[in-house]
Amino acid sequence: MSTNGTQNLEQGNRAYVAEFTQGDLALPPSQKYAVLTCMDARIDPAAAFGIPLGAAHVIRNAGASAHDGFRSLVISQQLLGTTEILLVKHTGCGMLTFDNDTAKDLVSKNKGEAAAKEVEHIDFLTFPDLEAKVKEDVEWLKSTAIEEGIRITGWVYEVETGKARHVV
Amino acid sequence: MSTNGTQNLEQGNRAYVAEFTQGDLALPPSQKYAVLTCMDARIDPAAAFGIPLGAAHVIRNAGASAHDGFRSLVISQQLLGTTEILLVKHTGCGMLTFDNDTAKDLVSKNKGEAAAKEVEHIDFLTFPDLEAKVKEDVEWLKSTAIEEGIRITGWVYEVETGKARHVV
Repeated sequence: MSTNGTQNLEQGNRAYVAEFTQGDLALPPSQKYAVLTCMDARIDPAAAFGIPLGAAHVIRNAGASAHDGFRSLVISQQLLGTTEILLVKHTGCGMLTFDNDTAKDLVSKNKGEAAAKEVEHIDFLTFPDLEAKVKEDVEWLKSTAIEEGIRITGWVYEVETGKARHVV
Repeated sequence: MSTNGTQNLEQGNRAYVAEFTQGDLALPPSQKYAVLTCMDARIDPAAAFGIPLGAAHVIRNAGASAHDGFRSLVISQQLLGTTEILLVKHTGCGMLTFDNDTAKDLVSKNKGEAAAKEVEHIDFLTFPDLEAKVKEDVEWLKSTAIEEGIRITGWVYEVETGKARHVV
């Protein structure tokens, strides 16, 4: 059975392959930076953040969590030579709309007790204040094993306007 | 000081905002699926996998690891209603080129003993066989808290040709 995802992938990929010319790009990012942003469906990092193909690692998770992205960031810098991180959270983020308790209540209500039990030990890494969390994650990254000399900046992307603004 | 990342973001975002028309998309993905792929700089998921803006969550980490992406997948399904996962690993992945020991040796050689000590407890989640790992991650997702009725498929993206092929 064809589903939305597989159908989009098969059709979209046929068109992409027909125009594809960049098969010789190197593994390490050519412009030596990493973007950490949210998995949110309304964000297209390559287009919205001006990232040429091959230029930067793009790490995405629920809420653009620095903690959740840490393994990938370490690999990006320690093994693949990047020297800059752009952390981009966004307006209207799902992680702003609930905390661990309300998230678990919602799972229980929507999916039943078995599902709720399976997620009871998960930290959803929610946060109540967008700009404060951008600053907190940037500070945390600066205080961790992330190497000295790495430049780290924090941004907010507005899903309503397409605009990215610098926070820290 | 302007850097590659901030300069690309500022210039690219100005152009993006000038053409932006989709400020009213809903938070839950309109086509109810999630794509889990690698952070590799040579992958542009929206273009290569045919994902319209607002249609799907896109989760990215080093190696397209299902374990590393688990929190985000749970949130995608349990809280935001997605019912399909496309797992896409790729040829030439950094996670294929070393294992934990060689990765740590490389950090030690490139960055020194202090850096090596800081990464000694990290599991880089490397893997030696691409297609086998696609199958293993799909099986693992099917066996976890990921809800029954979710359709999960596994793919390999070829960075040399732009082509995505179905594995499982």
